Amino acid sequence: MPNPTAAILVIGDEILSGRTRDANMHYLAGQLTEHGIDLREARVVSDDPAAIVATVQALSAAYDNVFTSGGIGPTHDDITADCIAEAFGVSIDVRDDARAILADHYARSGVELNAARLRMARIPDGASLIDNPVSSAPGFTLGNVHVMAGVPSVFRAMVASILPSLTGGAPLVSSTLRVERGEGDIAGPLGNLAALFPKLSFGSYPFQKDGRYGANIVVRGTDTAEVARAISALNAEFPA
Amino acid sequence: MPNPTAAILVIGDEILSGRTRDANMHYLAGQLTEHGIDLREARVVSDDPAAIVATVQALSAAYDNVFTSGGIGPTHDDITADCIAEAFGVSIDVRDDARAILADHYARSGVELNAARLRMARIPDGASLIDNPVSSAPGFTLGNVHVMAGVPSVFRAMVASILPSLTGGAPLVSSTLRVERGEGDIAGPLGNLAALFPKLSFGSYPFQKDGRYGANIVVRGTDTAEVARAISALNAEFPA
Repeated sequence: MPNPTAAILVIGDEILSGRTRDANMHYLAGQLTEHGIDLREARVVSDDPAAIVATVQALSAAYDNVFTSGGIGPTHDDITADCIAEAFGVSIDVRDDARAILADHYARSGVELNAARLRMARIPDGASLIDNPVSSAPGFTLGNVHVMAGVPSVFRAMVASILPSLTGGAPLVSSTLRVERGEGDIAGPLGNLAALFPKLSFGSYPFQKDGRYGANIVVRGTDTAEVARAISALNAEFPA
Repeated sequence: MPNPTAAILVIGDEILSGRTRDANMHYLAGQLTEHGIDLREARVVSDDPAAIVATVQALSAAYDNVFTSGGIGPTHDDITADCIAEAFGVSIDVRDDARAILADHYARSGVELNAARLRMARIPDGASLIDNPVSSAPGFTLGNVHVMAGVPSVFRAMVASILPSLTGGAPLVSSTLRVERGEGDIAGPLGNLAALFPKLSFGSYPFQKDGRYGANIVVRGTDTAEVARAISALNAEFPA
């Protein structure tokens, strides 16, 4: 059975303007690979409701899981929750369980739960909450869409909260052989060898460092023994 | 007149598996902002011809410029050029001018221009070449799609080769005010103030470091004086 599929949608003007370098896509990619979920696509869109709604609908229809990052804080530019509600055609309002989490958190820290902070308790109808052990304001899952914060420490905590509950597949195994020959010399034999292992993927990633050059050949698949056989064949083809 | 728009498409299994952290998206975002081109969307897809072709067609139709990164080397997994040709419905073959560039480069370094390396001279019909001063194998522009290498040093060189030839607009100006108050306290007044400057965008990016917390408020727009007025108003609202 093929592994479940996924996409990530990163939301935020600050990424597209170059102010902030996104870190969540790369983090999630590694986590999903370990969990046996194939990340097939990633997108970044700006704080534009129409773009967010259309993208959520497209990704939700195309993949088993969609993860979003960003736009669920207390300020006026935090519009993700409303967009998710619109994408699914459901209503959204402050929900008692989310409000209770925030009330408890802010009471402990002696901070007022004002109207802005209460925005973080707005949850689309039918969603389940995602635990946020870092700063309490919850994420949520609606349908196959998991809505999480953009702040990397919170994003990571939320991924840890939900990943165990998601159906995974066989973890993707990868093995790398470093070959100190020009990629143009490697290409022919590598292509022939890749054709002999149709269930595996073979990537070639050139490097040039400290006067040495070559390529890292990465073999990926879910069958550990098959990956090992491919690496043996590569070793025979490209002896050190 | 609104600024020209753009999207970037990063191609490669190694990004989606978490093996490699993409650097080109963030780099291009900063370059385009300086050049007055609005980066509206970014996508990452795997080495899957159908996904690449469909995504190129969608982005090419939606934006003024599309930049691609990755998949134009000599190995079997370098399929971007063929996919671009398919997306535009044109033929592709080794082209004399591209072959001459490679022949010259490899002759100087005493390396054979074999069949694999010659793949890098395959250029879709009607494309113009993008100069690669780092490793010679050219990128190309077809229609509004600029096809560049994934290796960051080569990607950057190619961006420098083409950016001056693209129509830019007013560079996006941004200014940041650091406010050491909880984002939930900032949110209300910030939202009111943002409504007074409809031509500007206001972003709030929370931080927590060394026991201090607050938010960086970033004001963005193309009118420097207007951005300065907004920062003055923010200063008055949130005195240090």
